Formats: sequence, C-alpha cells, structure tokens
Amino acid sequence: MMTKIRVVIFGCGPIGCSVARYAAQRADIELVGAIDIDESLAGRDLGEVAGVDGKLGVTVSSDADSVLSETRPDVVFLTTSSSMVLVYPQIEKCARAGANVISTCEELSFPHRKSPQLAAEIDRVAKAHSVTVLATGVNPGFLMDAWPLFMTGVCQQVERIRAIRVQDASPRRGPFQKKIGAGRTLEEFETLVASGTLKHVGLPESIAMIADGLGWTLDDITESIEPVIATRQVKTDFVTVEPGQAAGVRQVGRGIRAGEELITLEFEAAVGGSESYDAVYITGIPNMEVVIRGGTHGDIATAAITVNCIHRVVEARPGLLTMRELPVVSAFGKDV
Amino acid sequence: MMTKIRVVIFGCGPIGCSVARYAAQRADIELVGAIDIDESLAGRDLGEVAGVDGKLGVTVSSDADSVLSETRPDVVFLTTSSSMVLVYPQIEKCARAGANVISTCEELSFPHRKSPQLAAEIDRVAKAHSVTVLATGVNPGFLMDAWPLFMTGVCQQVERIRAIRVQDASPRRGPFQKKIGAGRTLEEFETLVASGTLKHVGLPESIAMIADGLGWTLDDITESIEPVIATRQVKTDFVTVEPGQAAGVRQVGRGIRAGEELITLEFEAAVGGSESYDAVYITGIPNMEVVIRGGTHGDIATAAITVNCIHRVVEARPGLLTMRELPVVSAFGKDV
Repeated sequence: MMTKIRVVIFGCGPIGCSVARYAAQRADIELVGAIDIDESLAGRDLGEVAGVDGKLGVTVSSDADSVLSETRPDVVFLTTSSSMVLVYPQIEKCARAGANVISTCEELSFPHRKSPQLAAEIDRVAKAHSVTVLATGVNPGFLMDAWPLFMTGVCQQVERIRAIRVQDASPRRGPFQKKIGAGRTLEEFETLVASGTLKHVGLPESIAMIADGLGWTLDDITESIEPVIATRQVKTDFVTVEPGQAAGVRQVGRGIRAGEELITLEFEAAVGGSESYDAVYITGIPNMEVVIRGGTHGDIATAAITVNCIHRVVEARPGLLTMRELPVVSAFGKDV
Repeated sequence: MMTKIRVVIFGCGPIGCSVARYAAQRADIELVGAIDIDESLAGRDLGEVAGVDGKLGVTVSSDADSVLSETRPDVVFLTTSSSMVLVYPQIEKCARAGANVISTCEELSFPHRKSPQLAAEIDRVAKAHSVTVLATGVNPGFLMDAWPLFMTGVCQQVERIRAIRVQDASPRRGPFQKKIGAGRTLEEFETLVASGTLKHVGLPESIAMIADGLGWTLDDITESIEPVIATRQVKTDFVTVEPGQAAGVRQVGRGIRAGEELITLEFEAAVGGSESYDAVYITGIPNMEVVIRGGTHGDIATAAITVNCIHRVVEARPGLLTMRELPVVSAFGKDV
C-alpha cells in the first residue's frame, strides 16, 4: 500500500548495525544497500553482520559510490564517525546521489557554533542537490537538547537549564564498562582522557542548540571530564573496581554568559553507583523538574530516533537541519 | 532591531487576559488590539482588564471586524470558546483580515476525527487567505498529546500509552475549586456533569492526535467522568468538603482498538488529595516512565505555549495545523 522508503546503511559498526536491525523490522522501510570501509565485511549479508536472524538480502560493500549510484536510496543512515570533518565527504557523496542523510555524527547535531563554515558548506551542498541532512541520536539529539527545549515550551520565562544523564553501567555490556574507564587506576584514566577515547562527544553541541533555541548568546562553553572514584570494591560480570580506582566517568558542560552559568549538562556513567535516570530542571516561570525514571536505554533510543526521523526528513525542506527544526518525531506504532 | 509581531487578543476572559499579560512582557510582540463580545469591557484599556500594572495603550472593542481591519495583525490569539463551531466564524474573520490564528479552543487542537468536515473547511479558509491556524494549550496541546508523542521518538515500538494529570486543587483559586465540584453533594455533582459545566474538554482530541501520530486506527474513543469522593473532611480557604461529598473530578479517556485499550488519559483535580504531577507511561521498547514532579501550572503553561508558538506559526505553511506538525516550540529566553 504505502511506498517503502529506500534506505542505505553507511557504516556497519555497532550503531549502524543497531539502526539496521530496527530498520529491518519496519514495514515502511526497505533496506537496499550497506556500506563499510572495513574490507573484511565486504560481500557479507547485512543481516549476518548486524546479527539479525536470517539474511536481509543486502550485501555490504566498501564501494560507497557504486552502492549509492546503483541503489539510489531515498535516505542514507550515516553512522561512520563522530567527526564532522570525516563525515563531510560522505555526506557529499550521498547528496550527489540525491539521498537525504540522517547521521549519528555527534558534531553535526548542532554545528553552527563550533564549525559554522563547514556547516554552511554542508547546507549549501544539501540544497544544491535538494536533499535534507540531519544528525540525531539519544544524546546529542534528544535528551540534552531537543527534549529540554521542548519542555520550555510551557514556560513564560527561562533563567537557567540543567540536564542530567546518569547511567548505572553495572548491567551494561563489557565494552561499555571498559569504555567509561571502570577498573582503571586514576593514572590510566588520565591517559584514556588524554587519548580522547573516553570522552562523550556532544555536550557543547547540545548547549549551543539550547542557547540558540532560547535566543541566548553565550560568551563561553566549557567542558570538564573526571573519574567517578569508587569508595568500595565493585564487581560486575566484566570488571572488578578497587576502592580508589575509576568506577566510570563524569563529564560536565557549561554554557556561560556574563560569568553566569545558564546551561549545565551533566553526564555520568559508572558501575556500582547511582541508579540510572535522565532529568531536566528548568529555573523559570514556572520551575520545572522532569524525570525519566530508570533512564533511557542509549543503544535502543539512538537507533529508534535515527529511524523514527525518516518521514520528517523525507518531507523536510532541503538543507542542513537540526532536531529543533523538525516537527514532533514520534514512534511508528506497531499495528498488530 | 527585530520587527515586532503585531498581535490582537480576541476574547478577554481569564485565558485571554493571561495570554495578554504574558504577551505584554515579550520584547518580540506588540499588542495592537483587543476584542471581546462583552459590551461592558468595550472602551477600557486592555492592561486594566487584564490586571497589568499600568495601561497597555490598547482599547478593548466589541467590533471584531473594525479591530481586525484597522490593526491588520500578524497573529490573533483567539481564546473565546472551547467549541469549534463557535470559533469557526471568528477564525474566518481573522483569516479574511490576513491574520494567523493561535487559539486555545480545545476542540480545534485535533479536530480531524470528531469534526473532519469543519476541520477541512477551516483548512480551506486558512489556505485561501494564506494564513496558519493552530490550537494549543497545556491540555490539550501539550501534556496529553504532543509531549507523549515527543517521548515516543526514542522508542522502537509502542504498544500502549498512558498519560496522567493529577492536580491538587487545594492551593488553587476559589473558582477553580468550585469548577471541579469540590464541596458538592454527589447529586449536585451529577447535575453539574449533566449541564456540561464541569467537564474538561480535550481528552478525545488528545487521544486522536496520539493515535494519528503513531499510525493507529482506533475503533472507539470513550470518556468517563466521576467525582473524587472525600473520605475525610477537607477545608481549603474557599470550601469545606464533608466526607462522602465530591472533593473534585476524575475523568478518563480511552482509545480502543479491537477491544484493547491502547491509549489511556487520566485527568484528576481534587482538593485534599494526591500531590500534583504529570506523567507519561509508554509500554514498548523500551518502556518509559516520565514524570513532571509537582505538575504543571495550568494557567501559566497555557498562556506560555500559546504565545511561545508565535514564531513557529508565523513561519509555518498556510492551513490548519496541529501541535505535532510544528517544529519544537521553546520559550523565549530572557536576555538580562
């Protein structure tokens, strides 16, 4: 009945695979191609790579140009990198092939403050080929930017916004616990921070989106990152953290104007610590305190919102958009 | 610097006055006219009528046509009635004058299920005059429709949605406590229900919006209304409720498909009862439980979102829109 939206997965890492698994279940989407630079994946069925039961009938290829020109997708899910500089040439390829792009590239979620020139260039390319480019995800893209902004809609005045994401990493996968530094000495933690592998990317982008939405001109956006230090021994299925070691990471982003901290985003992920939750606190008229009890499952939510944006992006005007410019993105309710 | 948006208040009752008070504070809005059918308000300054300190320099008039043709507003805030049939001729006047309309008419918030013909007619009139028509408010318009839908954006599957609004009416104004039936005998309560004065309008509209957003076709939408019965004596500044009398009202709307209740909206306002809160519960992948602690101040929030929609409505395509079609509506942050 409904014409299916033709989709290519560009990037078959963990996020791309999770997007592919969800997209494969959707009655309104047809997977028509998959791209990854990893030659060892080339020739394999996307279903196998993504861990779906059974094949999807789509072969992973490392030749982006061929896949795009042969499949002519309506939308490309681009999940290759957090770096805007790295995704830019890939976006250009997609735009040339006439495909809209929904990316999980964190830096692209609100690039207008940090990379205005590259953002303008991507906007220009998108418009030249009449396609829409959007970056989204659970964070950035929802919990610390679009959602807080959405909640301010019922406020007559906003003086300050604080968003918090606390994740109890104990029940999460081993790689996630390793990624947040659980079980590292403080020296090792510092090394991980210095190497850039431990850092959550996106707080400055979320702060810039909130400020833009509220019409605030910020003087500065700062970021800090530090270990959550274990005060007792914590054992998970994957790691043992001794007292004094890092149990995880705590990252804080601040949006500042005239010495005042107007926006505070706090991101914490640790084992054996607090219960998971997400929250938005608005100081204004009225004050608001909104809490997602038990938090939001990052992997599920990122794949969900990336795919759930598809109709809004297909319908949107050409150019580089952000989540605050899309009409309400809701789930595709299951008709059983 | 910024060109101000020229605004007329159409309806100077409690909601219109509260919208006027907030609009008067906004640097991006210029109040240029005010309309009310009540002849006793005619000739008075809107500031005086709305209870603002000092005059606003806008005189209330009962002659809608003259006000609209003389002031040529960009936007009319239409707060005259909950009934779509009653606001329709007023919307037509506004459209003919080239003005966009933001209304708090509950039935207009999502009219496509209950009044598809009138909705189509309003859409036609709006398009004919290149204006946008939108109805909004805290509920319907936000808490039980746009907000739940927005939260499903991070879900891969939605099986059921439940939204709850509980208001402790004890600290509220006397007229509000009276309106919800506090201190009435059960017989009196029934009479109030039968007369239609006690009922909150909007649950079916919110249910229809959620279903439409998720792509669900409902077989039926039902509504029930009953008293919250006091189990002990409750005294407020305005009313004394004896045990066995009504302490307030509880209203439940249900969206049903194939005998299954997919959407449940519960609205409760009573004195001496539960603490205020608003909540959304999504059964799906993942489950979500989102709570506004302490609830949402209805009067402040309705005026806020009505006015906060203004830029989105001015920029929107012509026609009759609903809240789920607008890009994220955020507050106008105060630049101090």
